[in-house]
Amino acid sequence: MKLSFKKSLITLLCLGVSASAFAQSSQLTKPEQLIKVRQSLFQTIGWNCTRIRQNLDKEYNKTEVIKSAEVIATLANSALDVLFAPGTATGKGWKDTAVKPEFFSKPEHSAQLLHQFRKEANTLAELVQTGSAEIVRPQFENLVKTCKACHDDFRNN
Amino acid sequence: MKLSFKKSLITLLCLGVSASAFAQSSQLTKPEQLIKVRQSLFQTIGWNCTRIRQNLDKEYNKTEVIKSAEVIATLANSALDVLFAPGTATGKGWKDTAVKPEFFSKPEHSAQLLHQFRKEANTLAELVQTGSAEIVRPQFENLVKTCKACHDDFRNN
Repeated sequence: MKLSFKKSLITLLCLGVSASAFAQSSQLTKPEQLIKVRQSLFQTIGWNCTRIRQNLDKEYNKTEVIKSAEVIATLANSALDVLFAPGTATGKGWKDTAVKPEFFSKPEHSAQLLHQFRKEANTLAELVQTGSAEIVRPQFENLVKTCKACHDDFRNN
Repeated sequence: MKLSFKKSLITLLCLGVSASAFAQSSQLTKPEQLIKVRQSLFQTIGWNCTRIRQNLDKEYNKTEVIKSAEVIATLANSALDVLFAPGTATGKGWKDTAVKPEFFSKPEHSAQLLHQFRKEANTLAELVQTGSAEIVRPQFENLVKTCKACHDDFRNN
């Protein structure tokens, strides 16, 4: 009886661990979850772009711009390949994904646009350290162009 | 007639600029938008925490862990004060906010928990550079404790 209880307990514990590991793994691979994180990531990037734009249009606050540029660059360098994994061409995260099938059927073109986006984001994150709006402005426009290029080719509006 | 057309054009252009400036400013201050970005930011943090956890539980990939730790630290150091601005205690971003009113009515306590979260996230981002899961694990647990502390006190589940 004691042994049987022990065995049941071990089984339960193993099931618990498996369930937890499964839940964890599912969080990292389930298309709906990846789409939700992808939408979250670009929502965060978009808001920080608007924040930099306002700093360039109104009063320039170096600290604010540095923080926003670092958010954009860090997210651009993060696991975008995982978030755009095969199987995430359709599905609902916070809402239905707006990505076009061409993003996945033209992998060289989409990879090239993402590469360009990362490059401009990294350059911006370096330039904002100088503190000059005049230096930051053209590089911010370079970044925005890469956003627009990808939206034009690969996003339903 | 020509002058009147020119004046109308200028007025229209000015209206366009004002509308755009208003839209931009509204993106940065409208409670629903701030809540949406806040939810996006913590969704991104949560996913990257799960990714580090899986690396610690299964095969440890230093590059993956560094990327995720950098995302968490950069977002922790970003404009959280703006995203939790007064007026964002209730409202709907992607969904209704889960923040408790106490977050705003106990500003010293919430600021202290956010400070602790930032501190542990920054320490984690430094430690992951060593590449050792044994060193990273306890610091990751320190970070998770700060998430839990804030959720316990300030989040409706």
